[in-house]
Amino acid sequence: MGAAKILVIGGTGFMGKFVVEASVKAGHPTFVLVRDSTLSNPQKSTIIHHFKTLGVNILLGDIHDHQSLVKAIKQVGVVISTVNHAQVADQFKIISAIKEAGNVKRFFPSEFGFDVDRKQGPVMAKAIFESKSKIRRAIEAEGIPHTYVVANILARHFLPTQPELRAIAAPLDKVVIFGDGNLKGTFNPEEAIVTFTIRTVDDPRTLNKVLYIRPPANTISYNDLVSLWEKKTGKTLERVYIPEEQVLKLIQESSYPINMALSICHAAYLRQDYINIEIEPSLGYEASDLYAEVKYTTVDGFLEENKARTPFYLNQFVPINN
Amino acid sequence: MGAAKILVIGGTGFMGKFVVEASVKAGHPTFVLVRDSTLSNPQKSTIIHHFKTLGVNILLGDIHDHQSLVKAIKQVGVVISTVNHAQVADQFKIISAIKEAGNVKRFFPSEFGFDVDRKQGPVMAKAIFESKSKIRRAIEAEGIPHTYVVANILARHFLPTQPELRAIAAPLDKVVIFGDGNLKGTFNPEEAIVTFTIRTVDDPRTLNKVLYIRPPANTISYNDLVSLWEKKTGKTLERVYIPEEQVLKLIQESSYPINMALSICHAAYLRQDYINIEIEPSLGYEASDLYAEVKYTTVDGFLEENKARTPFYLNQFVPINN
Repeated sequence: MGAAKILVIGGTGFMGKFVVEASVKAGHPTFVLVRDSTLSNPQKSTIIHHFKTLGVNILLGDIHDHQSLVKAIKQVGVVISTVNHAQVADQFKIISAIKEAGNVKRFFPSEFGFDVDRKQGPVMAKAIFESKSKIRRAIEAEGIPHTYVVANILARHFLPTQPELRAIAAPLDKVVIFGDGNLKGTFNPEEAIVTFTIRTVDDPRTLNKVLYIRPPANTISYNDLVSLWEKKTGKTLERVYIPEEQVLKLIQESSYPINMALSICHAAYLRQDYINIEIEPSLGYEASDLYAEVKYTTVDGFLEENKARTPFYLNQFVPINN
Repeated sequence: MGAAKILVIGGTGFMGKFVVEASVKAGHPTFVLVRDSTLSNPQKSTIIHHFKTLGVNILLGDIHDHQSLVKAIKQVGVVISTVNHAQVADQFKIISAIKEAGNVKRFFPSEFGFDVDRKQGPVMAKAIFESKSKIRRAIEAEGIPHTYVVANILARHFLPTQPELRAIAAPLDKVVIFGDGNLKGTFNPEEAIVTFTIRTVDDPRTLNKVLYIRPPANTISYNDLVSLWEKKTGKTLERVYIPEEQVLKLIQESSYPINMALSICHAAYLRQDYINIEIEPSLGYEASDLYAEVKYTTVDGFLEENKARTPFYLNQFVPINN
């Protein structure tokens, strides 16, 4: 038998790199589909070189070159897509290739965020959500074995470093919090997401199910997150709470792409129906429940290792009256 | 003969509404593809009601329902797609349906921005550009008659209203300008874009060509744009120039989606190879050249009618040291 062979499509991207590393670490023969043109990109070629030192198999090909895709897929049992948001619908081409290849035991479409089937997408990001939902329906219609990974808030996205912050209106002794800051959401370090994803690739229990990654240690309120950051840094922040009506008004009144960012944050921090979905046993499982033995990166450990990361993402978008 | 029948896909969206109105105004029998679920959306149903009063034919259907799409396309000669950036790759489905329908004389994929075939896309928006480029290649591979409309900077996007501005770091007596502000770019009011687009639907000269919308009156430098705004409003702004190295540094150091917005602005205001493409006669035409008789909305007229719109888009993203 041996560990399943895994092909990562989008492997040199942000999420892809984490998946590739976790796959190798777990002992899976790991393959990455890379375009010819990517090899000559200086930034990407550094990543590919790193992959090679890890023993990753680089396969030349392209989602838009059907035969190259089929050929790559035929070499593995598991396909994990980590294509970016502009390429969501390109995954119809992966579905066609998987169908033709005929050998795939599990396909993970590019998700790792909200459960896109639940309710409507956040106002401005609705099209992206719908697009991901349609990929799910196409996978099911073709009878392709799959798992959908839902991990809510990605740590590196929502905890930017200080240089990543732009045009901050408020002095950084204040932190913007949506609502009363007491709703619990899940802040998942990318390492935790990919560890659970790789763990589940050959688990029959999650076949054709959703894997919800909501480990208790990473499921905390924004107030708790800020307190944790304060503890790590020794700083104290004044908390500026923005009521939901005002958040909705901000979204309505903002221009693109700020309205999109605010809309996603609204869903992430205020919409109970997104963040605390009751897990219907027929639909899926919670990852840390299913794999109690797995050691995962906690948000506490993440902040310890990544002290430069801050809870000021929202400060970029919300003016504070001093 | 009579005017060509036009189907707009994405007709209730931002750009779609302008296209539908321009199509009706020019006397084309106009059709809009609408999903069942859209009818029950309060905001969209207002738009659909407005379309009906204009005499627009509402066709129920969905890009993802192949037969409904083929049926809608069979009723017209021209298809204009205005789907949003998250649905770019969904247009492969439009291409398949056009191929099956077999009757389409001209297809306009959703573009209306930069010439996506020129050079690499702006750093962070590269995937969207590549995706649009691939749609072009698929159209050509299938031999579908087409025109690509390239219109550079959309007025309503880059000239936000004051309430649309968020978290402005600088006092609004200053305006952020990328580079020295002397490079000429094209700021096109959406009305101008759709007027030229509709004008060209049955012009054999633009068949399988690019239509560049760069009318002289809308092709001005950022310094001129600010001066124009100052004249309209009677205000005077201090101009804060950001050199290109600093712009690139800001992109590098920003988090998503601000890095994407900055990256597009970098291309729009600083990259000569995007904004002042020399038009190769074998590839396409400039619209106001081709249609000298067409009266189009100028940026001057636009600012006169839209006095609430401001040149402060960049102020949202660039901190100014006072």
